[in-house]
Amino acid sequence: MEPVPRGVVSRLPLYYRALALLDQEKVPLISSQDLGARLQLTPAQIRKDLSYFGRFGKQGRGYNVKRLLLELRRILGLDREWGMALVGVGRLGRAILSYGGFNPQGFKVIAAFDTDPSQIGKKVGNLTVQDFSEMPAAVKSKRLFIGIVAVPPPQAQGVINQLVSAGVKAILNYAPGQSQVPEGVHLREIDPVMALQSLTFYLKNTQEKAAR
Amino acid sequence: MEPVPRGVVSRLPLYYRALALLDQEKVPLISSQDLGARLQLTPAQIRKDLSYFGRFGKQGRGYNVKRLLLELRRILGLDREWGMALVGVGRLGRAILSYGGFNPQGFKVIAAFDTDPSQIGKKVGNLTVQDFSEMPAAVKSKRLFIGIVAVPPPQAQGVINQLVSAGVKAILNYAPGQSQVPEGVHLREIDPVMALQSLTFYLKNTQEKAAR
Repeated sequence: MEPVPRGVVSRLPLYYRALALLDQEKVPLISSQDLGARLQLTPAQIRKDLSYFGRFGKQGRGYNVKRLLLELRRILGLDREWGMALVGVGRLGRAILSYGGFNPQGFKVIAAFDTDPSQIGKKVGNLTVQDFSEMPAAVKSKRLFIGIVAVPPPQAQGVINQLVSAGVKAILNYAPGQSQVPEGVHLREIDPVMALQSLTFYLKNTQEKAAR
Repeated sequence: MEPVPRGVVSRLPLYYRALALLDQEKVPLISSQDLGARLQLTPAQIRKDLSYFGRFGKQGRGYNVKRLLLELRRILGLDREWGMALVGVGRLGRAILSYGGFNPQGFKVIAAFDTDPSQIGKKVGNLTVQDFSEMPAAVKSKRLFIGIVAVPPPQAQGVINQLVSAGVKAILNYAPGQSQVPEGVHLREIDPVMALQSLTFYLKNTQEKAAR
């Protein structure tokens, strides 16, 4: 199979979400035209993105919503539960631990680590904070495939390197910066600035109107 | 001017970032083909997205990187500083206040609010936490155009409603859920699950290989 470009992979959850909504609305079929209108992508972009995974749509009939939804679920690996290791239980880490959106989607923080002796051994929710030096053993024994990095930005690269050494192949970094991962390891960053940069598009217009 | 679809607006920061990088690399011109290859979008998608804002590329020559970068800066309203109001100075709010990525991009938290009496009046960084009831006056006097919501999910909609009443037109919500805003107000959510859902694509392949 042709390797799927990163940009395509990062759009798949958008498709997944749109299709889940369509399925809830009991829409049985959708054309690439209509799906494109929902996601503001050209129909050709949608057909190209999905073509990496085989032929889903029937010429002129559109995509079977239920079938494509199930396929995307399988393609994205969302048909199982994923254990995650959290590194950093400061303010941000604790906020992440109390975030209620992970579990319903099959993502579960199984172990939490810190290097701060005053944190180690403390209960946070139903987890006990462990020494970061215990991370590699826990990753193996508990099959933690995902690492969440919630340490201050200057420490992020070091933590990422150690997660990678321990065998973690996917990392979600809350400290966006210039972090690097070797080939075969995948990194995503929570980037609030990008969200803000699309909001100001609208504000700028509002401001300009107000100034007229 | 034709209204620009939300999906297009949310892709503009991606273009902006890619062009800023190209400019750093001293690349003077880029074709929609090459820009597409960097962003894994079809050249037609890129041309269509940018066509909402006028004609940038010369047929057969590609886009002038510096010019398009400046245009996007102006289009996205990134050529000025934006004052923000933070609501919620619990763990998450404090993590947001100490986040170093906003200021270099022109985003600045100017005021922070909470309803918890034990927080009000406390210093956090160089801000003093104010009573949430003071928010509407501060939004007006300090021209805070952006609200950041960092309260527990069940409280998010109430806070959003009050920000909207106070005249805030753009909201970044760290408590993703089913929050609604009226027309003319724009909402973005920090959604870690979407990032995780594209990571598991790679893990699933790794797992399957390991199982063989």
